[in-house]
Amino acid sequence: MKIKGKSWQTIWLVNDTHVEVIDQTNLPHKFITKKLLEVDDFFWAIKNMVVRGAPLIGVTGAYGLAFSIKGDASEANIKKNRKYLESARPTAVNLKWALDRICKKIHNINLENRFTTALEEAQLIEKEDIEMCSEIGENGLKVLRNIYKEKLKKEANCRLNILTHCNAGWLATVDWGTALAPIYKAVRENINLHVWVDETRPRNQGANLTAYELDSEGISHSVIVDNAGGYLMQNNKVDLVIVGSDRTTSIGDVCNKIGTYLKALAAKENNIPFYVALPISTIDWTLEDGVKTIPIEQRSSDEVKYISGLDMNGEIQKVQILPKGCKSYNPAFDVTPAKYVTGLITEKGVCRPDKLSLKSLYFG
Amino acid sequence: MKIKGKSWQTIWLVNDTHVEVIDQTNLPHKFITKKLLEVDDFFWAIKNMVVRGAPLIGVTGAYGLAFSIKGDASEANIKKNRKYLESARPTAVNLKWALDRICKKIHNINLENRFTTALEEAQLIEKEDIEMCSEIGENGLKVLRNIYKEKLKKEANCRLNILTHCNAGWLATVDWGTALAPIYKAVRENINLHVWVDETRPRNQGANLTAYELDSEGISHSVIVDNAGGYLMQNNKVDLVIVGSDRTTSIGDVCNKIGTYLKALAAKENNIPFYVALPISTIDWTLEDGVKTIPIEQRSSDEVKYISGLDMNGEIQKVQILPKGCKSYNPAFDVTPAKYVTGLITEKGVCRPDKLSLKSLYFG
Repeated sequence: MKIKGKSWQTIWLVNDTHVEVIDQTNLPHKFITKKLLEVDDFFWAIKNMVVRGAPLIGVTGAYGLAFSIKGDASEANIKKNRKYLESARPTAVNLKWALDRICKKIHNINLENRFTTALEEAQLIEKEDIEMCSEIGENGLKVLRNIYKEKLKKEANCRLNILTHCNAGWLATVDWGTALAPIYKAVRENINLHVWVDETRPRNQGANLTAYELDSEGISHSVIVDNAGGYLMQNNKVDLVIVGSDRTTSIGDVCNKIGTYLKALAAKENNIPFYVALPISTIDWTLEDGVKTIPIEQRSSDEVKYISGLDMNGEIQKVQILPKGCKSYNPAFDVTPAKYVTGLITEKGVCRPDKLSLKSLYFG
Repeated sequence: MKIKGKSWQTIWLVNDTHVEVIDQTNLPHKFITKKLLEVDDFFWAIKNMVVRGAPLIGVTGAYGLAFSIKGDASEANIKKNRKYLESARPTAVNLKWALDRICKKIHNINLENRFTTALEEAQLIEKEDIEMCSEIGENGLKVLRNIYKEKLKKEANCRLNILTHCNAGWLATVDWGTALAPIYKAVRENINLHVWVDETRPRNQGANLTAYELDSEGISHSVIVDNAGGYLMQNNKVDLVIVGSDRTTSIGDVCNKIGTYLKALAAKENNIPFYVALPISTIDWTLEDGVKTIPIEQRSSDEVKYISGLDMNGEIQKVQILPKGCKSYNPAFDVTPAKYVTGLITEKGVCRPDKLSLKSLYFG
């Protein structure tokens, strides 16, 4: 996707010598890229959220493991570095998956070819991620196109109003994104649209990342506080909602960033389609009732207590926004039961959120 | 109510010479009081939100008009100052009402007695506001007591978990508050309770004012981001919701701070009682369908773009939290239709949100 007219990915390989990434910790205020050479660089980038988003973390981990065995491709070194990289974000399922994949690929290869093979596999993971997101985009585009066509019948020259929560855009993947991919595709097809971007407290990924992505692509959008979505839906200012998913159960319950559930309730109540875009890999086939079974990460109260922004001198500064000594409680995700979800948009197609539909999409 | 062990009101008269108020613009980080003597002081305090909340603005306006005619109680001077004070917050219905009341009271009084009479009337408005809030507290206490008793039957030594949005506490009135008054009364009765305080973006009145009030009274509470309430309700962590109301229609639709509607939806969906505490005076008997008829104030996008907090040196500093040039949309209120409201808590009693119940409460 574009930033200031130039095409970027969140991560890219440079001449088999190193990898570069966009440093997402300074967005939206500063655009900086970082070189990752040693395994410590990759660990640092994952640990400190220089890269974030499940798919991007996976790709970064894969490259990290490849470069970590450049000088020593012994089993012992692979094992050590794999463990080290995995510990950068222990709960990231996709990181574990990508590291596993590299290990399996090089297991039966000669020592001297292991680095090259690992690097090729990391490149393949990168390529597959881009293709998968692009396919999610194409499938979601069909949904947007239909809703837009229906709206055009009632109102010529209308604008398609889409609400999204958090950041499920290209900055969370290598390119395209998941929930935002259909939007990028729709704009390329000249669908007249506007995106309502939920600020997404407490980490403000909507305001910091989604707004930045959309602005960089020249897509019409407005940031709203998380409180405003209900009002907008009640007043016919939203035609559909699209969000991402961190984990989806086999019956279609969706675990996503805290606050998603409230938007799903408002969408249902106001007869507004609520779509979730996700890679098939985020489906946990072992789970059914998400509210009962998915453990919700409780994060540091400091995320609620402090916020960063630009001060009057244009420097990034952290300020305390809660009273001294004030306690806060900070659940990071919530679960939206399948009954509030209109459809799941995946790389294999769009389906209803139920066991049969998901299975036939996956196995069919 | 108490701050650091000492009892305070938000506004108080000092020896018929001036009025003092708590400067709410620096809360929760700094506690400062201001003297108001001249009409310009009162205008400034209302205009710059040194005092805020409909009831408190009304009382401040009443005192302001009284002091403005201390040296010149002519009709011309009364008219001029009344117009001036009203212009400080043109949409504040309660300000207009309080100024009207002072004018009517002194209209047929000798010039030399007008100041004293106006001051007495302002004191009466202050006293009535305290009594009204206390009665809302008593009536709401019955609701809390019942819900707590029911919970105790199922779970000995339980805690009553109450969620509130925005600030409808004593800082918005002279004392007690509206939505928080029942909580203050319940704590005095040793009901074991905990308050979930919605941060309430974009102006953060929950984090800045409600958390400050509760902390000052030593009441157990946690600030949560506005996104978290749905998760808490879904997971049995909320026993009831109480919020205030800016305007209530004759059929019980409630216009309150943006985001109230989303919490009402989640409460309904999870069978959690959702109560609204309000003075009867905020009922607009001319309106029915609130979504269709109540105009929603659209406020400056700067409220979303900037936020104030304490920097590392303990100074209050404003930082920009949206990307440069980013647009935002900032509706200040939303309407919660009566069907999501369990009951209305007023100074005259508690009733169901429908025309007949409201009328019989008011006229009965």
